[in-house]
Amino acid sequence: MWTELAHIVRHASADPDIRVLVLSSTSDAAFTAGLDLKSQAALAAPAPDPARKALALHAHLSAFQSAVSSLSACRQPVICALHGIALGLAIDIAAACDIRLCASDTSFGVFEVNVGLAADIGTLQRFPKITGNDSKVRELALMGRPFGPKEAEEMGFVSEIVDGGRAQVVAVAIEKAKVIASRSPVAVISTKHILNHARDHTVEQGLQYVAAWNMSMLQSSDTAKAMAATRNKEPVTFSGFSDAKL
Amino acid sequence: MWTELAHIVRHASADPDIRVLVLSSTSDAAFTAGLDLKSQAALAAPAPDPARKALALHAHLSAFQSAVSSLSACRQPVICALHGIALGLAIDIAAACDIRLCASDTSFGVFEVNVGLAADIGTLQRFPKITGNDSKVRELALMGRPFGPKEAEEMGFVSEIVDGGRAQVVAVAIEKAKVIASRSPVAVISTKHILNHARDHTVEQGLQYVAAWNMSMLQSSDTAKAMAATRNKEPVTFSGFSDAKL
Amino acid sequence: MWTELAHIVRHASADPDIRVLVLSSTSDAAFTAGLDLKSQAALAAPAPDPARKALALHAHLSAFQSAVSSLSACRQPVICALHGIALGLAIDIAAACDIRLCASDTSFGVFEVNVGLAADIGTLQRFPKITGNDSKVRELALMGRPFGPKEAEEMGFVSEIVDGGRAQVVAVAIEKAKVIASRSPVAVISTKHILNHARDHTVEQGLQYVAAWNMSMLQSSDTAKAMAATRNKEPVTFSGFSDAKL
Amino acid sequence: MWTELAHIVRHASADPDIRVLVLSSTSDAAFTAGLDLKSQAALAAPAPDPARKALALHAHLSAFQSAVSSLSACRQPVICALHGIALGLAIDIAAACDIRLCASDTSFGVFEVNVGLAADIGTLQRFPKITGNDSKVRELALMGRPFGPKEAEEMGFVSEIVDGGRAQVVAVAIEKAKVIASRSPVAVISTKHILNHARDHTVEQGLQYVAAWNMSMLQSSDTAKAMAATRNKEPVTFSGFSDAKL
Amino acid sequence: MWTELAHIVRHASADPDIRVLVLSSTSDAAFTAGLDLKSQAALAAPAPDPARKALALHAHLSAFQSAVSSLSACRQPVICALHGIALGLAIDIAAACDIRLCASDTSFGVFEVNVGLAADIGTLQRFPKITGNDSKVRELALMGRPFGPKEAEEMGFVSEIVDGGRAQVVAVAIEKAKVIASRSPVAVISTKHILNHARDHTVEQGLQYVAAWNMSMLQSSDTAKAMAATRNKEPVTFSGFSDAKL
Amino acid sequence: MWTELAHIVRHASADPDIRVLVLSSTSDAAFTAGLDLKSQAALAAPAPDPARKALALHAHLSAFQSAVSSLSACRQPVICALHGIALGLAIDIAAACDIRLCASDTSFGVFEVNVGLAADIGTLQRFPKITGNDSKVRELALMGRPFGPKEAEEMGFVSEIVDGGRAQVVAVAIEKAKVIASRSPVAVISTKHILNHARDHTVEQGLQYVAAWNMSMLQSSDTAKAMAATRNKEPVTFSGFSDAKL
Repeated sequence: MWTELAHIVRHASADPDIRVLVLSSTSDAAFTAGLDLKSQAALAAPAPDPARKALALHAHLSAFQSAVSSLSACRQPVICALHGIALGLAIDIAAACDIRLCASDTSFGVFEVNVGLAADIGTLQRFPKITGNDSKVRELALMGRPFGPKEAEEMGFVSEIVDGGRAQVVAVAIEKAKVIASRSPVAVISTKHILNHARDHTVEQGLQYVAAWNMSMLQSSDTAKAMAATRNKEPVTFSGFSDAKL
Repeated sequence: MWTELAHIVRHASADPDIRVLVLSSTSDAAFTAGLDLKSQAALAAPAPDPARKALALHAHLSAFQSAVSSLSACRQPVICALHGIALGLAIDIAAACDIRLCASDTSFGVFEVNVGLAADIGTLQRFPKITGNDSKVRELALMGRPFGPKEAEEMGFVSEIVDGGRAQVVAVAIEKAKVIASRSPVAVISTKHILNHARDHTVEQGLQYVAAWNMSMLQSSDTAKAMAATRNKEPVTFSGFSDAKL
Repeated sequence: MWTELAHIVRHASADPDIRVLVLSSTSDAAFTAGLDLKSQAALAAPAPDPARKALALHAHLSAFQSAVSSLSACRQPVICALHGIALGLAIDIAAACDIRLCASDTSFGVFEVNVGLAADIGTLQRFPKITGNDSKVRELALMGRPFGPKEAEEMGFVSEIVDGGRAQVVAVAIEKAKVIASRSPVAVISTKHILNHARDHTVEQGLQYVAAWNMSMLQSSDTAKAMAATRNKEPVTFSGFSDAKL
Repeated sequence: MWTELAHIVRHASADPDIRVLVLSSTSDAAFTAGLDLKSQAALAAPAPDPARKALALHAHLSAFQSAVSSLSACRQPVICALHGIALGLAIDIAAACDIRLCASDTSFGVFEVNVGLAADIGTLQRFPKITGNDSKVRELALMGRPFGPKEAEEMGFVSEIVDGGRAQVVAVAIEKAKVIASRSPVAVISTKHILNHARDHTVEQGLQYVAAWNMSMLQSSDTAKAMAATRNKEPVTFSGFSDAKL
Repeated sequence: MWTELAHIVRHASADPDIRVLVLSSTSDAAFTAGLDLKSQAALAAPAPDPARKALALHAHLSAFQSAVSSLSACRQPVICALHGIALGLAIDIAAACDIRLCASDTSFGVFEVNVGLAADIGTLQRFPKITGNDSKVRELALMGRPFGPKEAEEMGFVSEIVDGGRAQVVAVAIEKAKVIASRSPVAVISTKHILNHARDHTVEQGLQYVAAWNMSMLQSSDTAKAMAATRNKEPVTFSGFSDAKL
Repeated sequence: MWTELAHIVRHASADPDIRVLVLSSTSDAAFTAGLDLKSQAALAAPAPDPARKALALHAHLSAFQSAVSSLSACRQPVICALHGIALGLAIDIAAACDIRLCASDTSFGVFEVNVGLAADIGTLQRFPKITGNDSKVRELALMGRPFGPKEAEEMGFVSEIVDGGRAQVVAVAIEKAKVIASRSPVAVISTKHILNHARDHTVEQGLQYVAAWNMSMLQSSDTAKAMAATRNKEPVTFSGFSDAKL
């Protein structure tokens, strides 16, 4: 399943006519209840040489991490619309997206500790960096207790709680996506790219990088177009990247 | 304008008798509505060689970034008193200050995406590092929608909302500035310097740096002075740096 | 005192039968009012050669930092139960713990600036990284003003306020500790270790590290045990590390 | 071509029965004379929107870099046997390998500056880090002048000059490869992996990482096997990774 | 003197018609014998408050470092032609340049330790990073013993020894400068900029940065021009940056 | 043995009257032939739970690394005088010292790969950073072949080959140690401290750190003393740190 998710996301990232993605579940009950525990148990089966087994596990984990990270690496922003049961892998996936909204019926949990392991595909790396209460992050990850929308919002994990369930949160996500899709794709792609870079560098390094990046981006015709539209309060449409193939 | 701002801030930073700065606007309506769009459009005009144009834009951006960063590099703390319209450049400037207060009439916005570009003089580097809700930061920067004092406070962008407008928020900023100005300048300058360092290093590197820094600072006569004053509940004044010129 | 604290914590860290620590004060009035000011004044006494004095101060600070950091380096999680007066050193210590709870009677303060110095044993390094409002952190550290439980919770410093005083907050801390102690120690120790690593590295570096770490941890028998218990809704106990001595 | 190279290298990296790679050219005259200049000229053709063109160039460069970096990311060591003309791309490729040998007839050159561009697929990143004379690196990259085996060896770019041409250097490379192939693959793969990690981290971070990595690798049965063989001065063979598939 | 040096270098860096700099001394006897010791002694004079004195020293050192670093920050490459006495500050300055040549009469020395201090304007930061024998670097810096051209070349500090003195080494430096000046300034400036960036980042970060940088630089008309000239073996001249002012 | 080594080194580091250390072997035949292989085999014995075994191995490796790193962390410089057989652990230890000299009879080897493991107590982290030929480092570490003094000197591992064996190299080491011991200990300790810091930080971060460090060190009375002695060509002695105890 996660291999397929990555495949779709990487395809979208390369498509110059896609402006933004909304990620949601098709089940009314759950965003996802996490990994199938049986497959996880197979990983833990004893092996004749723990070192060779370890190398195989390393290759498996690296591929899995890369799949989840495709959401963060995707050029266009990804809005994650969470609802219902959202456990384990749900947190890894949501944390790799750009914007997180949740329905008021969402039940969250970093449950890996409950099945005897430390989360290893992104939660422990991204969850503390995108929120503002490290004590809460550690409490949730070390106790493995469930938490609700209010706690998620107060700690900074979601930016909005939508009253209702799956249908309601997806509707709000699509509204926000429409606004983003109406902006210049040069500006939108650059903004996500620069925010990703800034997270992993010092302020000074980040400033140097955005100066290098924008010395071409500021030469876009979209700026004049956007400014004229703003001034005249007229609608404006921006072309995709199909005209920029090498 | 921003060249002049930097000039003043750098002058203040070198003045041993200045203890703290308050940055505010003189207009009742706006802190700032951002850059003049016309000058920005000129930057985007087509050029015969995009590479040479790019090098010129790089030099321009580096100088502009350096001007805004002068607030962060200033030895003394800078309190930013925000009110009214506070768009685009307002966020870059406020994010480079130490303490942010806003009046209840403030209307914020990361509006660069609306005019076809990614913010490039500090907002995308500093805004996520000084707040606690990355989903909200990305929503605001990618959608270009306005936000108010309550959202700003909840996400951790300001530390206090002052009821009223320009006059009221400036008054509170000055009160806080007076408390800071009454402290030992050795302690105040060191605290800002160490906080800036800590933000861009690991905890371990930060601890090593403060040990190196404080091995001279702890030899200050201000400590004994401050402690005596605390013990005796008497007022105390500390000298500036004019007596320490080489 | 802090030398002894470090000694105990390091001893606990090496003990395979200890699963979690709760740190609290035995005084009803105070968690701690901070360092003895007299000893601090002695440090600042004039010396014939400021450079030799500086080297001695550096050795002193490094040892003190290392003692406080033993809480963060401790393999098992440490829950800090704060109450009453919690000033200066209290913030350094609490910030080095994993989970922070406070009683509703707690009075906090980063008071170092009030006695003429910049905090140098962890507060300025950890406080901004574990909370979500940098403006508030700087206001508190630069002004040296007290703050209460509500401000601490809103800025993300504590994850829960417990109504009452010392007895009440310790009781809640112990309840949480019991849940953590019931989880697989392989999973708990790994989760803390990985969270500590993630804080000081980029997301990508963090992912690579957890893949290296978990290629042995996923071979634990605790996973099968934990999953069976979850499936059968039966209690489960995990062994300590005494069976893993080399 | 470079897409195909990456494809082969990635395939080899995943093959548990491959122990080491030797990279050489099939032409007696040249290792490679670098990129086809015509394709490079096409990249530089004017475009209606320099920003959209830039995004397309960015995607192109990222893919190209990733192809060359597959040599460095390959789990098994890669020995690069250089001879004859070795310009431009030759340096990028060789620098991404682990061991570099050259024939005495080799003519090297960082020639990108001669055709109006800065090398962008690895030379400027790796060449200074794997050699020991930064002044020489900069002279060669800024002047675009050719250099020979002796200069390459003295500055630390190759570890051995083999008298002769293609046939001779490939023969020596294969001899070295045979020794590496006779070692435990657990030890060989780990050594390359840890050297790659060390290059991009501090000494302390590197030590922490190898401790995490080796806590599984030291559980290998290869250690006992290798030691017994050493003691008894008997030949030994180690199995590949086929027995470690999950 | 060093303030003036920085002033000239910064001026040159902004001049679009300057392609390369050669730094040498006008004295036949010495490149420089280092700082005036008397001014250094004044810095060490006792002060009433070591902390205030320390802050003044910090400002002084920062300004001095920034002056020497102007050579490294200069957009165009700087060739340092060393000869005669080259002690203390000579090493700081040379290490901040791009290419180092020395006359066979040069006498080098990291002599700061001999006058009771650790070098603090660049030698200890840059010397080990641009050479390939850390044991030698430490021996020279800790013993304060002189070393000659051969040792300098073998450890990778200079890329060429020119037989003779000042006149001879300057002549060779100018020859090399002429070659660099004949290359596309887009390519030359970019190559230095990217090498500087690479030194202070991981390989992966460096690759990401050069991709961002080159997405505008590859759109230069210089590439086609340089390639045509190469193909036709004809001379070529490239314009400066005067045509790229905003 | 290595526990004891660390104990002695840490004791020396804290002793204000020790100026420099020389590390050598008492055996005429060997510096060290590396770890006792039997103890290593015990580490690899199969365990019921590979995860618990891994945690025990992690604790063991961390302690062992810390012991070897005590040489690098030691405040005073350590000169390593190598001779005879110098395999495995010999490289880890030598790489953690400041200055490396070898007798002409020395036989080096990174032999860990030969016994089925990747070196994990420092060689793979430090060896490439202190030398100037990464291809050679990888060849030696991946092939496990012996190398001699000439190869060691050319790649930058030692700074001098002393003709003879143990007695001769120790004599030269002591001569160098005497020079270092005659310098101001403020300058010597600072120089080592700053070189260690520089290795693991960017040039800019290194410059900031040395400015913080030297703002107290430049207030030393040793500077005036050293300058007067230099001027008058008179001998000078500097006091240790016993006068600087807090």
